[in-house]
Amino acid sequence: MTSEVILRHHDELAAIVGAANVLTGDAVPAKHVQDLWGSDRVGQAEIVVRPRTAAEVAQILKYCHEDRQPVVVQGGMTGLVSGAVPDAGEIVLSTELLGEIEPVDLAGRTVTAGAGATLADVQDAAARHGLLLPIDLASKGSATIGGCVATNAGGVNVVGFGMTRQHVRSLEVALADGQVLTLSTSLVKDNAGIDLKHLFIGSEGILGVVTRATFGLQPGAITRNGAFCAVADVDSALRLLGTLQRKLPGAVTAFEVIWDDAYRVLEPTGIRLPLPVGHPIYVLVECRGADPEGDAVRLAECVAEVEDDLLAAAVASNAKELAVFWAARERIPGEILRMQPLFGFDVSVPAGQLAECLHRMRAELTELWPAVKLLVFGHLGDDNVHIAVVTGETTRDRKPEVEHIVYRLVTNSGGSISAEHGVGFEKRSYLGYTRSEGEIDLMARLKALLDPHGILNRDRMIHWRGEPY
Amino acid sequence: MTSEVILRHHDELAAIVGAANVLTGDAVPAKHVQDLWGSDRVGQAEIVVRPRTAAEVAQILKYCHEDRQPVVVQGGMTGLVSGAVPDAGEIVLSTELLGEIEPVDLAGRTVTAGAGATLADVQDAAARHGLLLPIDLASKGSATIGGCVATNAGGVNVVGFGMTRQHVRSLEVALADGQVLTLSTSLVKDNAGIDLKHLFIGSEGILGVVTRATFGLQPGAITRNGAFCAVADVDSALRLLGTLQRKLPGAVTAFEVIWDDAYRVLEPTGIRLPLPVGHPIYVLVECRGADPEGDAVRLAECVAEVEDDLLAAAVASNAKELAVFWAARERIPGEILRMQPLFGFDVSVPAGQLAECLHRMRAELTELWPAVKLLVFGHLGDDNVHIAVVTGETTRDRKPEVEHIVYRLVTNSGGSISAEHGVGFEKRSYLGYTRSEGEIDLMARLKALLDPHGILNRDRMIHWRGEPY
Repeated sequence: MTSEVILRHHDELAAIVGAANVLTGDAVPAKHVQDLWGSDRVGQAEIVVRPRTAAEVAQILKYCHEDRQPVVVQGGMTGLVSGAVPDAGEIVLSTELLGEIEPVDLAGRTVTAGAGATLADVQDAAARHGLLLPIDLASKGSATIGGCVATNAGGVNVVGFGMTRQHVRSLEVALADGQVLTLSTSLVKDNAGIDLKHLFIGSEGILGVVTRATFGLQPGAITRNGAFCAVADVDSALRLLGTLQRKLPGAVTAFEVIWDDAYRVLEPTGIRLPLPVGHPIYVLVECRGADPEGDAVRLAECVAEVEDDLLAAAVASNAKELAVFWAARERIPGEILRMQPLFGFDVSVPAGQLAECLHRMRAELTELWPAVKLLVFGHLGDDNVHIAVVTGETTRDRKPEVEHIVYRLVTNSGGSISAEHGVGFEKRSYLGYTRSEGEIDLMARLKALLDPHGILNRDRMIHWRGEPY
Repeated sequence: MTSEVILRHHDELAAIVGAANVLTGDAVPAKHVQDLWGSDRVGQAEIVVRPRTAAEVAQILKYCHEDRQPVVVQGGMTGLVSGAVPDAGEIVLSTELLGEIEPVDLAGRTVTAGAGATLADVQDAAARHGLLLPIDLASKGSATIGGCVATNAGGVNVVGFGMTRQHVRSLEVALADGQVLTLSTSLVKDNAGIDLKHLFIGSEGILGVVTRATFGLQPGAITRNGAFCAVADVDSALRLLGTLQRKLPGAVTAFEVIWDDAYRVLEPTGIRLPLPVGHPIYVLVECRGADPEGDAVRLAECVAEVEDDLLAAAVASNAKELAVFWAARERIPGEILRMQPLFGFDVSVPAGQLAECLHRMRAELTELWPAVKLLVFGHLGDDNVHIAVVTGETTRDRKPEVEHIVYRLVTNSGGSISAEHGVGFEKRSYLGYTRSEGEIDLMARLKALLDPHGILNRDRMIHWRGEPY
């Protein structure tokens, strides 16, 4: 079937990017219709256009803007909120050919790359010069830096280095009307006017298309040390974190927490477990340093200092042992994903409220599903947990009920319905739990200002209100 | 003389904030008409209104919005670009009564304060709990946190902790139309929609009035160590910085650089000099740590490692010696300010271009003023230098000529006309050196969206274009 979208736009788009870069019908790979890790929403990708330059992106947008033709922007499809899943009638704009990585600027310690470059490739480019782009995600081999910027990606290093936003120095963006802007500079400090790049970071592509980004880099760590500990409760974990951050200032780069139910998914895999199952909570700590003799000792001393809070602890004495800790941590999400149907949540809860919030959540869910399982892991230093709810039912029909319970309790605890995954389609109807009417209204007004015909990622994050009147 | 502004607005404003908080005529303190450290621009403050709550701020703005009455917002007046100097006919909105500091949230490690609280008072509130708000400015005793947020203040700790933006978790802002919004939460991670607070941070009050802010805090340092070094050139200083950041990851909290001409201003003061004058460039390094025995040794080892690059070095062996280093550094701006008339610049230049840029600047200025002096100091780790130009003339008449030379050369080197001081009135006509037409146009469109009558800090940063058509 040749759809109306294809018929109307094929030749115009081919004139911009070349016929080889307009895919239609059976030539469209399956990756374009769904989030990489699976999603409830499965879209249709009738026509995929692959621009090779920012100028081509701009031409496509200008054409669509004038034609009122909706466009969805796709990077590595590693999002988890269906933000890049195409809606019927949308043109898919894939950034995959915008993958150029420029030579690392060693004097300025920055790297610039096209939106389609993968995070892993950009990290590697930096690492070849002993430098670090400290954004680290399990999906870094597929996630693009355009997507990282558009979603303000988090990951396991936020406790040490902050979110993606913190590393962006400048952005090139194409606006809906076809204007290309370079926002800010590669300078550390640049207070010449409103720093417009921040409007686009984390805006999930509804205000413009990121085509290129420059990131500040950190010196690579000389030593990496880690410990895997078991604790009785969140408060003990927080005391461990507090001690580490006070005693080893600037050193803690990861502080991952895994509740026992989530840890137990590793048992059937046969993978080496850093500690036996059965403790309430596990913590994986990583610290950076530059003293090959002293750093491991200092970490061990810190761990020893809080030993009253620890039920068990393993300190990695070499890189291989640290890799074992990470292999366990990184295996967990994939194992949890096998327990379908499950409902996954990425939420923030103030760390001090977390234990109580999870307790209530378990209680409320158990009332409806007596055999419910909550598998919880996350980034405690960032107030961020991932919660997988397995109700034991065989269908996903009651997803809204689970969502309401989780998001209501998170909200009542002062948390956020989205810590790092964004909103997309998946959480749009819950945005009002975390954001006020005034905030959402301002987002909509910014959308209308920058994309008056609503062609960009329409209906993601916020409902498209139609043409401004 | 009772002006038209006073006659029209006094009673309406008094009804909002109480008559005692509307100052007019001789009751208006002199501080309201000029930047605290002096400025070419001296304004008129015919009427000053001092709201006590965000709701009162909102009522004032709503009234002015409906009346098309311009308002200028004032904090501690420590800005250096005349951004808060009142224009004729403006109402001065002073945040001085919005000074409440809420109890520090120890679990979340945040502090919340009203816009009028001084940075020093907020720092002190955090320090009483062993926590650090790592924004440090010479003017912290007067600078308000509202002003810090509105200007995205920098200071001496940016190399270690980033600009003010990085520490803001959430903001309360009053919009021009009288709406009060709380933007984001105190959570570390909150990707629920566009993070609107970033629109207001660094917007110099042209989009809304910051009435309250919540900041993330860091653990206070247990040790502070420092060194004062002399080097032959910028490259040597950069190698020192690179070594320190690699060998002491996360430890460097300040890296201040002073050129000899600026250092020499200390000689007549009789203050103790950490090193004798006569070396080309001086560097003050500070590192944080938590190991009272080891940290000083490690810093000394790093300094020793680059000794080939150093012409002289003094490592502080105790807090008193470190204080001597800082006393020298902090005395410099004040001494330079005595050399009137001088023209001061706050610019960014990519560190690798800095030496060449300063060389050209000196050459071009010397052609016009053979006895010209350039006094340079700044924050090398942040690409940021402050340049004082003393032409030797007795008037300020030729300021535009100096500005054109400095800003043109900075721009040609890939720098920014404003590193940390912002734009205000002072740099508005040079904004186009650093920002593109498209960027400035987008700033103006955001201004028109949020403040359609242009009542807020009108004509600061960007020229007010009049009512949108």
